[in-house]
Amino acid sequence: MRTQVAIIGAGPAGLFLGHLLKQAGVDAVILERKDRDYVEGRVRAGVLEQITVDLMERLGLGERMRREGLVHGGTNLASDGEVFRIDMAELTGGSTVMVYGQQEVMKDLFDAAEARGVNIVFDADQVRPHDIDTDKPYVTWRKDGVEQRLDCDFIAGCDGYHGVSRAAIPADVLKTFERVYPFGWLGILTEAPPCDHELIYSNHERGFALASMRSPTRSRYYLQCSLDDRIEDWPDERFWDEISIRLGPDAASRIVRAPSFEKSIAPLRSFVTEPMRHGRLFLAGDAAHIVPPTGAKGMNLAVSDVVMLSEALSEYFQEGSAAGIDGYSARALARVWKAERFSWWFTSLTHRFPDRDGFDRKMQIAELDYIKGSRAAQVTLAENYVGLPLV
Amino acid sequence: MRTQVAIIGAGPAGLFLGHLLKQAGVDAVILERKDRDYVEGRVRAGVLEQITVDLMERLGLGERMRREGLVHGGTNLASDGEVFRIDMAELTGGSTVMVYGQQEVMKDLFDAAEARGVNIVFDADQVRPHDIDTDKPYVTWRKDGVEQRLDCDFIAGCDGYHGVSRAAIPADVLKTFERVYPFGWLGILTEAPPCDHELIYSNHERGFALASMRSPTRSRYYLQCSLDDRIEDWPDERFWDEISIRLGPDAASRIVRAPSFEKSIAPLRSFVTEPMRHGRLFLAGDAAHIVPPTGAKGMNLAVSDVVMLSEALSEYFQEGSAAGIDGYSARALARVWKAERFSWWFTSLTHRFPDRDGFDRKMQIAELDYIKGSRAAQVTLAENYVGLPLV
Repeated sequence: MRTQVAIIGAGPAGLFLGHLLKQAGVDAVILERKDRDYVEGRVRAGVLEQITVDLMERLGLGERMRREGLVHGGTNLASDGEVFRIDMAELTGGSTVMVYGQQEVMKDLFDAAEARGVNIVFDADQVRPHDIDTDKPYVTWRKDGVEQRLDCDFIAGCDGYHGVSRAAIPADVLKTFERVYPFGWLGILTEAPPCDHELIYSNHERGFALASMRSPTRSRYYLQCSLDDRIEDWPDERFWDEISIRLGPDAASRIVRAPSFEKSIAPLRSFVTEPMRHGRLFLAGDAAHIVPPTGAKGMNLAVSDVVMLSEALSEYFQEGSAAGIDGYSARALARVWKAERFSWWFTSLTHRFPDRDGFDRKMQIAELDYIKGSRAAQVTLAENYVGLPLV
Repeated sequence: MRTQVAIIGAGPAGLFLGHLLKQAGVDAVILERKDRDYVEGRVRAGVLEQITVDLMERLGLGERMRREGLVHGGTNLASDGEVFRIDMAELTGGSTVMVYGQQEVMKDLFDAAEARGVNIVFDADQVRPHDIDTDKPYVTWRKDGVEQRLDCDFIAGCDGYHGVSRAAIPADVLKTFERVYPFGWLGILTEAPPCDHELIYSNHERGFALASMRSPTRSRYYLQCSLDDRIEDWPDERFWDEISIRLGPDAASRIVRAPSFEKSIAPLRSFVTEPMRHGRLFLAGDAAHIVPPTGAKGMNLAVSDVVMLSEALSEYFQEGSAAGIDGYSARALARVWKAERFSWWFTSLTHRFPDRDGFDRKMQIAELDYIKGSRAAQVTLAENYVGLPLV
């Protein structure tokens, strides 16, 4: 089997890239370790930047998103229970974000992949990239017990933080940068209307809280928790009591305490590997970088990576120019680092750090106070939240 | 002896307060441990915010400042030797700062104090505030070996970080917040034109550097150094070689390597004590808070404190209202904390922290890169640098 681009992983990065290459007339095959139900069922982010909304539209996949997604022109910060709104649309000259769960995005991408003939191999076991240092790379895997091989011009590693792609690059050519945060996020999903029509990010002395949503009838809530906490430590009632304190009385009065149907604890990590290309292998999305979820940059960063990568590959195959692929890593990383900075800053501003002292807490409060009073500070938050431009 | 307000300390806070109270018709006496030459000779800050310029004018002391001071409408950030300008005047709708050394400010204040009959007692030994919890406080000191006593309605503690005023407040009513930075500033003064007509704040992987000035013919340069360094470790030639690297080739080519006539190492500290009032004693300036020198907020914060305090005291004596003195601490601290945040942020952005890792360094570079590309981020820097409004 032969193709132009072998894509490892059918998460958002891989699927978007598959669609973009299809649209550009570049042959590609996506290899996915799991099946569609598994990939589509993973509960992940739910806030799309303008660039992601634009990409859905450009791929002709915006119809359901426009109908079911929620356009948010603002978001809220709370400081010890007092809420103030950041009017993102007004502050940025009209930019907004779209609340539309990653699961919905994946469903649209998978449905369209079938309809358009985007090639996806599911249940591909033991996927391995080979000869990435040569101009004849290939990928192998096992399917139904039989060894398979795909020869290609390039490999796109879209297989996430734990994937085989980054691991295939010699360790001595990669520089990695990492920050592990001393807390986790305990998240729940409920079938109930959210407590606010927009999100509320709350800095409380007891810890961070976030009121989010997936739809007008599905709420998503998060609490900063200890990394030692277990799901069993947090029965629903304890969760509701705690988040009511952290969000403040006004939001708390509107919380509908419906039973949670999903509850999980996730660690928070900042991670970047440089460069994002080695030989004929490109990394995109979580394979190259992780952000803490504060500010919802994860999937949106995968989108900016694959938009840049698809442009670079199209240029290569259609114009015979290597300028795009040679510039991909630097171009992608310039935007990645800014989003990493925003996610780190927003996490630092809103969470309780057990290892920090009273001065740090005062710095958080002073910064929140400054943001409340400064239009420029609000613009910096807003322009990062809706997403920096693709340059 | 009796007065309405006893002011401890004839630094900028005490002297400005003395002038403000004189102008408002409130009796005051300033008690200073040292003599005029000593106080005036201390080499300190040199950048005045608009509020400080305004105060000089309001006191009728702006004439020499207007003639000799340098109005700066911009300042420069450098990142590993590449310089970019922050056009403060354009970004803030016309606000600027004034380069006019603290020594010059002090000279103007002392000269006018004599002319206007602002009472200053120099060489006042062992100054002590008493009975601050009562409505009959008083201050004692020794002068020429003789014990003196000044009865008063209020005491203003303007005697700096090491002064007796803060120490006179029972420790259990004060909350203090502190950050000691793991480096110092090595500063020199030279009689030579500065290398740029504006300041250059440089983040370099070898450490922070600052090119500043006192006048068109007097330069002030700073290097981040180790707290273990001694003056003797830094002969002029080593200083010039190092700062040339950190400021980058362009600025370095314009440095005039004149002999230094002042060279000193200062630690960097953030410190705030709350509240700024106890009974009949008010704290103002360094007695209540210290900022690291990055961004030049120290003297300007003393000014905002004493403007607020003089308003409160005038209100008390002229209108019989205690609202101002009761609100002083909260009002002053609201501005203090924002300036503390800015000074901490600007220090964190530009210095090398020996205890931090590659991720932190990348956050600095990403933030500098973001500032370069974002007008809003430049406005936040500019509006803090020229000084937040007095509210």
